[in-house]
Amino acid sequence: MQKILFLLLASFLALQSTSAQSESPVVVTKDKLRVVFQLTSNDTLLQKSLVKQLHNFLVAAPNARLEVVCHNNGISFLQTAITKQADKIKDLKARGVDFVACENTLRERKIKRTELVNECRTVPAGVVEIVLKQKKGWAYIKV
Amino acid sequence: MQKILFLLLASFLALQSTSAQSESPVVVTKDKLRVVFQLTSNDTLLQKSLVKQLHNFLVAAPNARLEVVCHNNGISFLQTAITKQADKIKDLKARGVDFVACENTLRERKIKRTELVNECRTVPAGVVEIVLKQKKGWAYIKV
Amino acid sequence: MQKILFLLLASFLALQSTSAQSESPVVVTKDKLRVVFQLTSNDTLLQKSLVKQLHNFLVAAPNARLEVVCHNNGISFLQTAITKQADKIKDLKARGVDFVACENTLRERKIKRTELVNECRTVPAGVVEIVLKQKKGWAYIKV
Repeated sequence: MQKILFLLLASFLALQSTSAQSESPVVVTKDKLRVVFQLTSNDTLLQKSLVKQLHNFLVAAPNARLEVVCHNNGISFLQTAITKQADKIKDLKARGVDFVACENTLRERKIKRTELVNECRTVPAGVVEIVLKQKKGWAYIKV
Repeated sequence: MQKILFLLLASFLALQSTSAQSESPVVVTKDKLRVVFQLTSNDTLLQKSLVKQLHNFLVAAPNARLEVVCHNNGISFLQTAITKQADKIKDLKARGVDFVACENTLRERKIKRTELVNECRTVPAGVVEIVLKQKKGWAYIKV
Repeated sequence: MQKILFLLLASFLALQSTSAQSESPVVVTKDKLRVVFQLTSNDTLLQKSLVKQLHNFLVAAPNARLEVVCHNNGISFLQTAITKQADKIKDLKARGVDFVACENTLRERKIKRTELVNECRTVPAGVVEIVLKQKKGWAYIKV
């Protein structure tokens, strides 16, 4: 009888564990997916959700190459004095995410390169960068 | 004279009819277009316009395969207690539209599968799903 | 001593000039990039930034073929009585940009073709147009 109870308990715990496992993030693919994200908004909630999205993506597709192009109002995401995601950007950069600022946006808004977080690089035109990546077969996500 | 008047009237009515016809939705292509839509907003007007968009798409391209991936705030579109489009979702599902919920979003917001409309399925990560579809040649539309 | 001062001054001016040059828009590629833009918003600031985006794109990629598909609330961009960008649309059209209105949107909102700017053409379904272009290899940008 005790043995049966033990087995029932063990089965129950095993089920619990399986259920918990299926609820936590899982690896969906080991493919080297390449994705360019476009951020054009200064909405801090949206920027926070982008950071979570990038994290979740790297959990589900650990070999992915991710690039985030920021232009127009999205430039605030990379401005040291404004962004609320500086720590997360540092973490994600260390995990290989490429952060990119649009020089057209910088010039039009008189923002200096030195006002941006160290973890980013710049391109002459953000939208052209996104189009060039799509042409090379990268997927595109508008944030 | 009466005959001429009659012919003029008939021509006029025929023109009217042609004009009305050209104003109603038409089949644009019979190609098997494949499109993944991304919904991230809980704006009920936007969700209403998505439903109309899907309908219009199937009129213009009756052989299209359409998939709608809902994540972040877009999950409300699939929540039985919240969505205003339950009937339309049922109709569109019957016409072959595939509705998909993001499990990361469900977990982060503590939403249970049972709280979603029956007509949807879930995937581990919504954005990865969209990227995988693009990689397979599906077109992408951000709603 | 005067010579040294002169050389220093010349170097300084040369640096200034280089710096200014690198800050102004540059040609990024002479490739014939093809891009379809999707406009669905009546936000006048967004519409203004789209116009700037198209201009910047043609500076960075002078051989690009650009198409702007307007549907849903984005139709206001092409409505003569509403748009604030009529002059810019005329300029961009002259530089080869293709402006397109969705007939489904026109019919649903009872807008006549004659209420749109001359510089645009119409298609039966805006979203189908965008998908057909993606299928032909055009890049896609959601504005």
